[in-house]
Amino acid sequence: MKKSIGAKTLVYPTPVFVVGSYNRNGRPNIMTAAWGGICCSKPPCVAVSLRKSRSSYDNIVSRKAFTINIPSEQHAAAADYVGIVSGRNKDKFAATGLTPVKSDRVDAPLVKEFAFALECNLLQTIEIGAHTQFIGEIIDIQAEEDMLDPTGAPDIEKVKPILFAPEMQAYYGIGSFVGKAFSIGETI
Amino acid sequence: MKKSIGAKTLVYPTPVFVVGSYNRNGRPNIMTAAWGGICCSKPPCVAVSLRKSRSSYDNIVSRKAFTINIPSEQHAAAADYVGIVSGRNKDKFAATGLTPVKSDRVDAPLVKEFAFALECNLLQTIEIGAHTQFIGEIIDIQAEEDMLDPTGAPDIEKVKPILFAPEMQAYYGIGSFVGKAFSIGETI
Repeated sequence: MKKSIGAKTLVYPTPVFVVGSYNRNGRPNIMTAAWGGICCSKPPCVAVSLRKSRSSYDNIVSRKAFTINIPSEQHAAAADYVGIVSGRNKDKFAATGLTPVKSDRVDAPLVKEFAFALECNLLQTIEIGAHTQFIGEIIDIQAEEDMLDPTGAPDIEKVKPILFAPEMQAYYGIGSFVGKAFSIGETI
Repeated sequence: MKKSIGAKTLVYPTPVFVVGSYNRNGRPNIMTAAWGGICCSKPPCVAVSLRKSRSSYDNIVSRKAFTINIPSEQHAAAADYVGIVSGRNKDKFAATGLTPVKSDRVDAPLVKEFAFALECNLLQTIEIGAHTQFIGEIIDIQAEEDMLDPTGAPDIEKVKPILFAPEMQAYYGIGSFVGKAFSIGETI
C-alpha cells in the first residue's frame, strides 16, 4: 500500500558528480553535485545543477566549461569533503591530496586520481529555481586505461562508483550484475 | 594513466526511470528512460530526456504531467521490456502484468508494484538535440509504506533499485553502505 511522503528530491540511484572548474584566475576547484545526469545522446550532453552561491557556479559561467569526475568507493570521503567545504576559502585539491590536471580539450581541470572524467563545454544554462542547470556538451572522456573493459568503456566493477541516497544522506557502492540491458526484457 | 575514449554518454551510476503518462484518450503508458536526474531543490524538480519519436513524448506534451517510477531488482526484466517496445502498438501494462494507478495529484499513472513514484507536473521543456528534456515539478511522492525507514523515506536497502551502466549495457543492483553523507568528509 502506498502513502504520500511529500514532495522530496529523491530518486534511486542519485549520482555523485565531482565537478571541476577554473576560476577567473585559473585556480582549479572541485565540488560535489548530486543533481544531474546524462540529458542527450546527440550531441552527447550531461546536466548538472548548482546553486548560484557556489564558487563553481561563477567559474562555469565565466569559463564556459566544466568536467564531471566519477569518484570510486575509495574516494568517498574526499567527494563528501569537497561537497561540504567552499572553494572560496579553501584549496580543495590541496586539502584532499587530489591532483588537478589541465584538460587538452576544455577549459576545466580533471581529477587525476579518479577513474574517468567527462570534458564538457557549456551548451545551455537553464534557470529552474534554487538551482541553475548547466547542460554541457561532452567533448571527450578521459579514462584510466587499466579500468577499461574489452569494448573500451570503463568497467563499472573496476571503477566501483558510489551513489547517493538523498533522504537517507548516505553513500552506497554498486552491487551485483542484474541483467543485460535491451535483452532481459525480451523474455516478456 | 588516462586515455581518451571519445565523447560517450556515460556516467556511473545512471538511473533506470520508468516514466508514466496518459495519451490523449487516457490510455496509460510506461517507458524506461536513463537520461535524467533530480535538477532542483526548490521547487523540487526532476529532469528526464526523451526522443520526440516516443509516444510518451506526445503524452507528456499533451497532458503536461508524468510520473517517475523506481523499479527494484525484481522488476528489471519489466523495466527493460518497457524500454524496448513502443506504446504505440502495445499495451505495456498488460504485457508486463504491471498495474496503472491513477494519481490523485497529477494527470499521469503510477506503477502500483514499484517501491515509489514521483508525481510531476511539467514545468519546462528544453530542446537539446536528439533528446528533449522535460523538467517536472515534484508535487508528491507515493511510496510503499512497508519500505519506509524510521525517517519516513524509502529505505534503499529495501527498495533494491537498479542502475544502468550505459556502454556496458548492463543493469546492476546496489551494494553496501559506504558512508554517511555530509559527514565522512569531516575526517579530512
